[in-house]
Amino acid sequence: MKNGIGNFSIGDSFENFILIKESSRGVTSNGKPFLTLILRDATGEIEAKLWDTNKEDEEIFVPEQIVKLTGEINQFRGKAQLKITSIRPAQSTDGVQVSDFVAKAPVEKEVLMEKLTETIFEMKNPSMQRIVRAFIKKYQEALLTYPAASKNHHEYVSGLAHHIVSMLALAKELHKLYPELNKDLLYAGIILHDLGKLKELSGVVTTSYTIEGKLLGHIPMMVEEIGHISKELEIEGEEVLILQHLVLSHHGKAEWGSPKPPLVREAELLHLIDLIDAKMNMLNRSLDKVKPGEFTERMFAMDNRAFYKPLFEEN
Amino acid sequence: MKNGIGNFSIGDSFENFILIKESSRGVTSNGKPFLTLILRDATGEIEAKLWDTNKEDEEIFVPEQIVKLTGEINQFRGKAQLKITSIRPAQSTDGVQVSDFVAKAPVEKEVLMEKLTETIFEMKNPSMQRIVRAFIKKYQEALLTYPAASKNHHEYVSGLAHHIVSMLALAKELHKLYPELNKDLLYAGIILHDLGKLKELSGVVTTSYTIEGKLLGHIPMMVEEIGHISKELEIEGEEVLILQHLVLSHHGKAEWGSPKPPLVREAELLHLIDLIDAKMNMLNRSLDKVKPGEFTERMFAMDNRAFYKPLFEEN
Amino acid sequence: MKNGIGNFSIGDSFENFILIKESSRGVTSNGKPFLTLILRDATGEIEAKLWDTNKEDEEIFVPEQIVKLTGEINQFRGKAQLKITSIRPAQSTDGVQVSDFVAKAPVEKEVLMEKLTETIFEMKNPSMQRIVRAFIKKYQEALLTYPAASKNHHEYVSGLAHHIVSMLALAKELHKLYPELNKDLLYAGIILHDLGKLKELSGVVTTSYTIEGKLLGHIPMMVEEIGHISKELEIEGEEVLILQHLVLSHHGKAEWGSPKPPLVREAELLHLIDLIDAKMNMLNRSLDKVKPGEFTERMFAMDNRAFYKPLFEEN
Amino acid sequence: MKNGIGNFSIGDSFENFILIKESSRGVTSNGKPFLTLILRDATGEIEAKLWDTNKEDEEIFVPEQIVKLTGEINQFRGKAQLKITSIRPAQSTDGVQVSDFVAKAPVEKEVLMEKLTETIFEMKNPSMQRIVRAFIKKYQEALLTYPAASKNHHEYVSGLAHHIVSMLALAKELHKLYPELNKDLLYAGIILHDLGKLKELSGVVTTSYTIEGKLLGHIPMMVEEIGHISKELEIEGEEVLILQHLVLSHHGKAEWGSPKPPLVREAELLHLIDLIDAKMNMLNRSLDKVKPGEFTERMFAMDNRAFYKPLFEEN
Amino acid sequence: MKNGIGNFSIGDSFENFILIKESSRGVTSNGKPFLTLILRDATGEIEAKLWDTNKEDEEIFVPEQIVKLTGEINQFRGKAQLKITSIRPAQSTDGVQVSDFVAKAPVEKEVLMEKLTETIFEMKNPSMQRIVRAFIKKYQEALLTYPAASKNHHEYVSGLAHHIVSMLALAKELHKLYPELNKDLLYAGIILHDLGKLKELSGVVTTSYTIEGKLLGHIPMMVEEIGHISKELEIEGEEVLILQHLVLSHHGKAEWGSPKPPLVREAELLHLIDLIDAKMNMLNRSLDKVKPGEFTERMFAMDNRAFYKPLFEEN
Amino acid sequence: MKNGIGNFSIGDSFENFILIKESSRGVTSNGKPFLTLILRDATGEIEAKLWDTNKEDEEIFVPEQIVKLTGEINQFRGKAQLKITSIRPAQSTDGVQVSDFVAKAPVEKEVLMEKLTETIFEMKNPSMQRIVRAFIKKYQEALLTYPAASKNHHEYVSGLAHHIVSMLALAKELHKLYPELNKDLLYAGIILHDLGKLKELSGVVTTSYTIEGKLLGHIPMMVEEIGHISKELEIEGEEVLILQHLVLSHHGKAEWGSPKPPLVREAELLHLIDLIDAKMNMLNRSLDKVKPGEFTERMFAMDNRAFYKPLFEEN
Repeated sequence: MKNGIGNFSIGDSFENFILIKESSRGVTSNGKPFLTLILRDATGEIEAKLWDTNKEDEEIFVPEQIVKLTGEINQFRGKAQLKITSIRPAQSTDGVQVSDFVAKAPVEKEVLMEKLTETIFEMKNPSMQRIVRAFIKKYQEALLTYPAASKNHHEYVSGLAHHIVSMLALAKELHKLYPELNKDLLYAGIILHDLGKLKELSGVVTTSYTIEGKLLGHIPMMVEEIGHISKELEIEGEEVLILQHLVLSHHGKAEWGSPKPPLVREAELLHLIDLIDAKMNMLNRSLDKVKPGEFTERMFAMDNRAFYKPLFEEN
Repeated sequence: MKNGIGNFSIGDSFENFILIKESSRGVTSNGKPFLTLILRDATGEIEAKLWDTNKEDEEIFVPEQIVKLTGEINQFRGKAQLKITSIRPAQSTDGVQVSDFVAKAPVEKEVLMEKLTETIFEMKNPSMQRIVRAFIKKYQEALLTYPAASKNHHEYVSGLAHHIVSMLALAKELHKLYPELNKDLLYAGIILHDLGKLKELSGVVTTSYTIEGKLLGHIPMMVEEIGHISKELEIEGEEVLILQHLVLSHHGKAEWGSPKPPLVREAELLHLIDLIDAKMNMLNRSLDKVKPGEFTERMFAMDNRAFYKPLFEEN
Repeated sequence: MKNGIGNFSIGDSFENFILIKESSRGVTSNGKPFLTLILRDATGEIEAKLWDTNKEDEEIFVPEQIVKLTGEINQFRGKAQLKITSIRPAQSTDGVQVSDFVAKAPVEKEVLMEKLTETIFEMKNPSMQRIVRAFIKKYQEALLTYPAASKNHHEYVSGLAHHIVSMLALAKELHKLYPELNKDLLYAGIILHDLGKLKELSGVVTTSYTIEGKLLGHIPMMVEEIGHISKELEIEGEEVLILQHLVLSHHGKAEWGSPKPPLVREAELLHLIDLIDAKMNMLNRSLDKVKPGEFTERMFAMDNRAFYKPLFEEN
Repeated sequence: MKNGIGNFSIGDSFENFILIKESSRGVTSNGKPFLTLILRDATGEIEAKLWDTNKEDEEIFVPEQIVKLTGEINQFRGKAQLKITSIRPAQSTDGVQVSDFVAKAPVEKEVLMEKLTETIFEMKNPSMQRIVRAFIKKYQEALLTYPAASKNHHEYVSGLAHHIVSMLALAKELHKLYPELNKDLLYAGIILHDLGKLKELSGVVTTSYTIEGKLLGHIPMMVEEIGHISKELEIEGEEVLILQHLVLSHHGKAEWGSPKPPLVREAELLHLIDLIDAKMNMLNRSLDKVKPGEFTERMFAMDNRAFYKPLFEEN
Repeated sequence: MKNGIGNFSIGDSFENFILIKESSRGVTSNGKPFLTLILRDATGEIEAKLWDTNKEDEEIFVPEQIVKLTGEINQFRGKAQLKITSIRPAQSTDGVQVSDFVAKAPVEKEVLMEKLTETIFEMKNPSMQRIVRAFIKKYQEALLTYPAASKNHHEYVSGLAHHIVSMLALAKELHKLYPELNKDLLYAGIILHDLGKLKELSGVVTTSYTIEGKLLGHIPMMVEEIGHISKELEIEGEEVLILQHLVLSHHGKAEWGSPKPPLVREAELLHLIDLIDAKMNMLNRSLDKVKPGEFTERMFAMDNRAFYKPLFEEN
Repeated sequence: MKNGIGNFSIGDSFENFILIKESSRGVTSNGKPFLTLILRDATGEIEAKLWDTNKEDEEIFVPEQIVKLTGEINQFRGKAQLKITSIRPAQSTDGVQVSDFVAKAPVEKEVLMEKLTETIFEMKNPSMQRIVRAFIKKYQEALLTYPAASKNHHEYVSGLAHHIVSMLALAKELHKLYPELNKDLLYAGIILHDLGKLKELSGVVTTSYTIEGKLLGHIPMMVEEIGHISKELEIEGEEVLILQHLVLSHHGKAEWGSPKPPLVREAELLHLIDLIDAKMNMLNRSLDKVKPGEFTERMFAMDNRAFYKPLFEEN
């Protein structure tokens, strides 16, 4: 999908299949109904207006529906907008499916799973290893497909696993530089830290927050589940408590959702590794879209900063 | 114990049994060893220095040891200090015991338990009732003896139960004024909200924080245990989640240790009732110690304010 | 007025009298003038556009004008909007008046006044009683009609008196639980605390801020007036100062408009009672509008939180 | 008093009369009573210990007592301390009086009064002029002797008047540069802004806060009194409100005690002029005590900064 | 240019030359292209829409193009908008030039230069004098034309020089009141403090930030350049360091861009003088636009406050 | 020096050479002079009191003097204190020198220099390479001996070079994981980022701040010097600006001393790498001092946290 919507410029014509992500009805100043569609494929999103719609249209053009669409990329209030010339829902004979229109991690699921297995195999502390293994077994399917967040960083299919595997690679290198680190603890903390998101987020394609996610959040949910699983596995010893602490504290500060700050060396490092990988993911993808000598868009999750790509960078 | 240490004035003589709360060794500028003792009875605390001590003294005058002491109340750097004339450890024949020297709630344990039982009996939602009943059964002993905090408010024997019972009374009245409130939910939330402190604090007499308390804190520990107990009781339904939310959010803000703010009406009210009862407990005890026209000492947990007792208050 | 505008859904037809709250002229992208009207009745507000207007329309459709209107509820940018089919100003023969379109407290003025009188009668401190009585006498008319605020809580006719009377009921119960409280002081503080709003706000129907309100605010204005009235009544003694302090400190913190924080026990409680009653008023009205399993709209004055109504709540 | 205590160095001998500012009893580690004295003259303060004291000493060496003292300046924990060799209370025949030991403004009272009168004479707005005149008349005595604050800036006899007169000079110059300014309003605001301190502070020599000062603060007290006096003078018109606003807002921010920020041009400038004169007063006196190439002590009221005196400054 | 755009009211007809400041292409809901123009003359700015535009239009109506325009002032979403009846680019024969449409300081360049020269002549410290002279020589042209900021205060041609000269006048008066001040240091600091803006801002007419300005900011750039120039002039001594400190600290706080707060008396005063002159510039121009009894618009750089013009101010 | 002062316990005897770091005179409550000495060797510091001192003692026992000392480790106010039995200044025949008593990096100077040289050799961008080379050449001596800070992290001889070399190793690994990174830029940024400390700090053994360090700080000084050196080397191109930006922004936030936040990818990473290496340095050294199951002392530079060493850590 090289010709994805994320690669078009103002003025280009568009003719392709695309997925409806959101759809909402409006009424023009002349009193005529229309639909505002958010369309997406694996490369990005664009807004479009479908004018003079009727009841039937509202029932057809709904989220997760794929459509065949012809149109032109215009600009409206400083943002790209797709002007629709023709639109029809995709049919089974078109041979397209929802997963074609969703961004995916740059690494295959199988490779990610292999890296995880490898890491667990490397662990020597039996308690930590058993806890991690139990979680991976229980959540394998979801873990390999969920995004790491609903937006900002690793917000694509397999994003969570991709984030974990990158963090594990970072941890491996840091362990070489700081051999005092407890590698098993760091690995276990990295693998577990965000698994609560599998319950906090509603799903892979249209990712919103569950009731449980809104009222408790992924951190306390995961602390609780480490307790449950350890009980089931009849694991005793401080490993359970310390793993719960790593998960609890990985946002670093009370204001950021961690009621306790990191109070164990590997908890502090887990927080920093998480930051680095999330930031590099956001920065690299944002800088990819600009040329040397330009600034990126402002990134909300980077304190609203716009980053500069120096002239001496070859694109 | 009317003649408790909390009622003495500078210049008074002291002759009585008293409990050592803390003991630490120092060396004078002349190089001579001494002990700094924090002594307490049910009415308050005082510092004392025991000069020219030897190894044996250090082994005798340790925390939780009762001593018979003669001396005089002096002032040192603006604080009262007990100048020791004579001191000896209490003997079994003295007929004194640790519990004599510890402050207690102004209401008897049995009365507190009765009020709790009454409230649980009043509850109509079976899920909430069963969860609360299971907790009370599991922790009854500790619940009726623990303080509500290691300092600031309700920091005396049965302080936690006293705090809970006062809050329940407040909730009952608020329910009359705002009948939309879910009484069962509010009652259950009040009873459970601070039970995690039974694991967070080390005990009744010398109250410090456990490792678990330091690394996780009473709020996530309690959220987890509500999950465990509900599982054991095979309770399903949103009651479990909402009770966990009430406990999780009862500090009101992330900065104060609640990763989620109150998002359910009764959670908001639980937070406010907790505030009122804690503040009234601190204020009433502080104001009791001053005369009309005077200010109290600064209270750390009241934003370091000193409160004024108006002239028109009869003491 | 069961069929009030607050109860309509998208797609419903509307045909009724309604009050213009605000009116402002705009020009379409085609250069044609139109009016944006904010319409209200006792149940809520809605925006409407009146297209292709002329000078005369602009003179007729002004704030506080009642209109007979036919139309349909549409949605525009995610908010309800009333599409006007026909509109005409109400005539004297229509038998409608402004007060029909304004929300009122759920308790009658007479009942509110009675409760106030009862409370004052109960007071024993003659200085406080005389001051309170003088204020009630001076401001009775306004006190019984003003809202407690221009928005957020108790923002309806008699809202201020309703708020005061609810707070008095709360205080009465709290006094039972904490008998150390000075009931007279608490009552007087509650009745006086927000009377400055009668000068800060411009009126009952279209409530804005007066110049005096903007430059001084209701708190310093009320502190000053307690001084004036006490002088006129020749009241001496600390009661005057303490009442001024209660009013001055009732917002709790300098950042919230109280140059001194509460430094008297009843001042602290006045602040907390004010919080509870304002929050319960907002929460109850917001939760009334949603079904179990849903979240309310975000409430600005509740730190922008959306509250959840649990599934086990019967509506 | 060139040989004032503020000019002594470590190691110097001291023999002179000096005033006791504070006195408090302590007990040495050997159990012997002593007095800690804070001694002052017009040039500064120093701490001293009087060892092996008895009841009689405690009754003689009390605040506001002048003593004849011989001793030596030592250093203790990094601060100068006066080691007492001999001490006796001053007698009537010694010809010394309290006022000799108190710092005074560098300008005489009479000159300050003259400047004030001159300024008032210059004012053209009759309402403002009458209000200001009434205040000066009522408070003339106190105004000419009070300090501007209990510490930090202008904390000496006639400090308040000195501060006002300096600010008036500044205002006069600023009016030349920004002729749009309302000179009368600025003058009146400057003269009135801190008069509430005459009620907030307890007196000239030992300056503490009054109950009224603690519970209300000088700002709301002064807003109230402007109201009272304007009523008595039967002054109407916006001048009263605007003067009250200037006083109310002169601390600049709610966090600093002004419930409303400056919302009138002259109110903004009053705040800035107040800042400048207070800061210059602190800085000049602090820098006077150090040599080029040195830093001053940290100044609490200058955000705890230590200021540098450049090498190129001639002392 | 009395009839400037800043003086028009809603409903007025407009026929005059005006400068395009910004131009951006949009597409209507009907899919038709249009241009949004920001037009300005020396008195203010206004938005206009040019409907049904084509490629050619987009190439003609670009920033810094002067146009002859006929139209009417309408209101759109509460803001004035210019409805275009006819528009054409200005021709060389029209005798208009860009500089006619740009606001200018109320004082002539020559006068400003003269004041600067006079001040430098007054300086006695040769090091400071030589540094200042070198900067003035190097940047004279830009210094006399640049604004002091891209918006908020002194945002007009010669704004920077106007700001400097006003500050110098203020400094001169302050030196009289506080003779301890080092006048040379204060003068040099004032002249140099914002010269870094000549590199931070892109130009006089359309003022944006340079890359260097965005990545370093005017303060560190200026500190560096004082170092370079002093090296070239072979100036030694603490004057260089102190001048760098004055520039570095003149924003007053780290949060406001000064990595060190003022630590030299004249640095503190430079910060305060800068504040006063910037604020008076904003306030005076804002208050000029309203009548007595009205509030100004909210001013972003004045903490979003709207200021009141009292009734007793003659306009 | 295995038997260093950092390894002693309360009650141990001490007999060894040790270095005086600080010395200050005090006077006991009995009026007798004494010296408070801060003594250090390469393993730590301890306080000691030398009683009944005379003028001569004060001249002998001064900072940077080595002494032969016999004594015992006592505890005073919860901190270890060395009770001196005998003390004499070291003589040339004792064969000890200051550098023996100063902590050193765990890596030799030569190795650190080699690593730096290697890294520079690896760089391909000639501008960056030349700038870095020029700095290393100019500051080689100091760079290899200075600490990275006066306290908290890498506060030992060669600490700065040790910190740089560790960060370079980290950067090398991160570059493998995130190949988009510009390795040369990251390397150059790491090497240069703290070189300003060579001017900000006074020296290696007794490390305080220079005047320049206090008034400007190492960040602006280094930005300036990159400018000077680039000028001398006649280097043009954006490399100079970007390197200045990396140095300027490496503290991450304005509040922490960076007037611009990181706006280039490698600047963001430089900030994070700096954090990680500083924190690991502090944590590892603190945790080394405690046993499993214990907490470290509170670390000021880690937000005052005490860290826990889990029971499952082998010491």
